[in-house]
Amino acid sequence: MSLGTPAHTTTVGAEAFFGAGLACCRVFRLLRVITVRDFPYRSLRLHACHRSAGKRLAFEDREYTVQDLAAPGAFDGVDIALFSAGGSVSRKYGPAAVARGAVVVDNSSAFRMDPEVPLVIPEVSPEAMGNVRLGQGAIVANPNCSTIICLMAATPLHRHAKVLRMVVSTYQAESGAGAAAMEELKLQTQEVLEGKAPTRNIFKQQYAFNIFSHNAPVLENGYNEEEMKMVKETRKFWNDKDVKVTATCIRVPVMRAHAESVNLQFEKPLDEVSDKDDVAVGRIRLDLSLDDNRGLDIFVCGDQIRKGAALNAVQIAEMLLK
Amino acid sequence: MSLGTPAHTTTVGAEAFFGAGLACCRVFRLLRVITVRDFPYRSLRLHACHRSAGKRLAFEDREYTVQDLAAPGAFDGVDIALFSAGGSVSRKYGPAAVARGAVVVDNSSAFRMDPEVPLVIPEVSPEAMGNVRLGQGAIVANPNCSTIICLMAATPLHRHAKVLRMVVSTYQAESGAGAAAMEELKLQTQEVLEGKAPTRNIFKQQYAFNIFSHNAPVLENGYNEEEMKMVKETRKFWNDKDVKVTATCIRVPVMRAHAESVNLQFEKPLDEVSDKDDVAVGRIRLDLSLDDNRGLDIFVCGDQIRKGAALNAVQIAEMLLK
Repeated sequence: MSLGTPAHTTTVGAEAFFGAGLACCRVFRLLRVITVRDFPYRSLRLHACHRSAGKRLAFEDREYTVQDLAAPGAFDGVDIALFSAGGSVSRKYGPAAVARGAVVVDNSSAFRMDPEVPLVIPEVSPEAMGNVRLGQGAIVANPNCSTIICLMAATPLHRHAKVLRMVVSTYQAESGAGAAAMEELKLQTQEVLEGKAPTRNIFKQQYAFNIFSHNAPVLENGYNEEEMKMVKETRKFWNDKDVKVTATCIRVPVMRAHAESVNLQFEKPLDEVSDKDDVAVGRIRLDLSLDDNRGLDIFVCGDQIRKGAALNAVQIAEMLLK
Repeated sequence: MSLGTPAHTTTVGAEAFFGAGLACCRVFRLLRVITVRDFPYRSLRLHACHRSAGKRLAFEDREYTVQDLAAPGAFDGVDIALFSAGGSVSRKYGPAAVARGAVVVDNSSAFRMDPEVPLVIPEVSPEAMGNVRLGQGAIVANPNCSTIICLMAATPLHRHAKVLRMVVSTYQAESGAGAAAMEELKLQTQEVLEGKAPTRNIFKQQYAFNIFSHNAPVLENGYNEEEMKMVKETRKFWNDKDVKVTATCIRVPVMRAHAESVNLQFEKPLDEVSDKDDVAVGRIRLDLSLDDNRGLDIFVCGDQIRKGAALNAVQIAEMLLK
C-alpha cells in the first residue's frame, strides 16, 4: 500500500477476498495460481485500501474493479479471503472478514504464532487445518516462505526419524523483497558491469555481485526476524517445542527461488531417504559429523513466491472445498 | 598450465620459487603480496613448465624471464619455493625442491593431509611450523581457501571453549575458479540482462543470477572434495580427530571473497567472544538451539585469493625469516 498500487479482493468457491497487497504483482501471482490450478469459484473480487478502490485491474480476459477494504459490508458474502498484504492489514481487516463468516488464508506473519490459528502446508500437514470449515469464520496462516521451503523437505524426515536439531543457512532471492528489488538488482548489475556506482533505493547494501544478511530487522538476541520465523514456525508446525532450530538468512543476487542448506540431526538412525515433494531436494548426504546415520545434510530449493506464498495459500483454499 | 600461461619461480629471502600456475594471475597475486608486504628477498625467480620457459613477465618496474621447472638444477640456490600450481605439479617438483634444501610453501592440496607436512595459518597456528627451518628442505602446506577463512574465525573460539561440532555452509565467489570464471560471470550476466542464452565455457551451470553446488568432484559419500577438505583439514589443523565437521559448499555469483555461515557447538559454555582477525566475522549469535551458551552462529567473510592462498603463503615464508 505504501506504493499506492492497486490491491485486491477475491471471492473463491462461493466468494473470496484478496487482501491489499504491497505490490500489484502479489495479486497477479495469486490470480495466476488460481487460473492455472483451475480453482473453482462462483465469484471473485479484489479488495484494497480506499486509495486503490475504484481502480481497474485486467487479468487474462477479465477486468476487476478494486473494492474498498474498509467499506461497510466489504466482506459480505465472502467465503474465502486470501490476504496477501502486510501484517498490519491482516490484523486490522482479518477479524472483520472472520466476523462475516469468511475463512481468511493469511500470507502475512500477523497470526502465524497465534495458538488458535493453524499454520498449514497442505502437502505435509493437512491435519493442521483441524476444524476449519467453509462457512465458519476462521484464520489459517501461511508459513514464512523460507520456512515452507525448508519444511516441505524436512517434515517427512522429521516424521520418519524425529529431528532433534536443525541448522539452516539460506540463499534467498531478491524477489522475496518485491518486484522493485528484483528490478533494482538488474539495474545495479548493469551499472556495476559498466563500472558505475550502483543505485540503492531499496536496500542500503549493494546486491549486484554481492551477498548480505537478510534485511529483516535484527532482534536483541542477534537473530533477525526472518531467522526467528524459521525457529518459531518450525516448532509450531511440528508441534514440538523442544526441537532445536537455528538459522542464518542471507540474500544472494538471484532473481527468483530460495535455496537453503539444511543440516538435520535425528533421534533415530536413518534407513532410507525419499524425496517426493515439489520443493527440489538435492545433495542428500548422511552427515558424517554424527554417528549411526543420525544426521543428514540436504540442499533444498523452491520458488519462494509460488510455493512460498501464493500457491500455498490457494492450496489451503482448495482444502476448504474438499 | 592447461591455459599455456607463463608461470613462475621466485627466490625469496635468499632465494625462492613460484610454482607453475594454472593462470598467470596467481603469480601476479603472489608478486603483489610480496611487494605490498615488502617481503625481503635477495633474488626472486619465476619457474613454470617448459612451454612457458623463456617467456617474459613484467611486474611493476621489473621484468622476469620464466625459467624451466624441469631443467637440471632448477632449484639450486632456492631457499623458499612458493608453489601455486596444481597438485600434480607440486607432487612432481616439490620433492625435487626439498632435495635441494628449499622450503616449499605449497598452495595445492597435494601434501595437506601428509602427517609429516605442517598445515599452517600463521596468525592462528604459528606453532604448527614445528621444526621447519630455512636451509633445511621441507614442505609446508597452505590449507584450502574455505578452510583458512573458516578457521581464522573458529580456531580462537576452539581454543577458548573446544568445538565439538561445526556445521558450515559456504557462499563461494567465482574467482575461486580462476580469472576465466570471473570473466565468464561478467559475460553471462550481460547476456542474461540482454535476454540472450549465457555462454558456458567453464562450468556447465549458469552462474549469472544463479547459485550451484561447488564444482569440485563429488565423492562416493555424497560430499564433494571441497567439503571434504574442510572436514579433513580442520581435524588436522586442530590436531583433533574427534571434532565433528560437516560442510555444504555452494558457489554464488560474486566476483571475489568467500563467505561462510558457520555453526559451532562447544564443550564449554561461552563467556565472551572476541574477533580480532583479518577475516571479517559478523552476525555473532549465541546459538539458541543449544543450551547453556554452548553454541554460536557466525558469518565469516574473507578474500579467498589473498588470505585464502597468496597472502597465507607469503606469511608462511615470512615466518621462516624470523
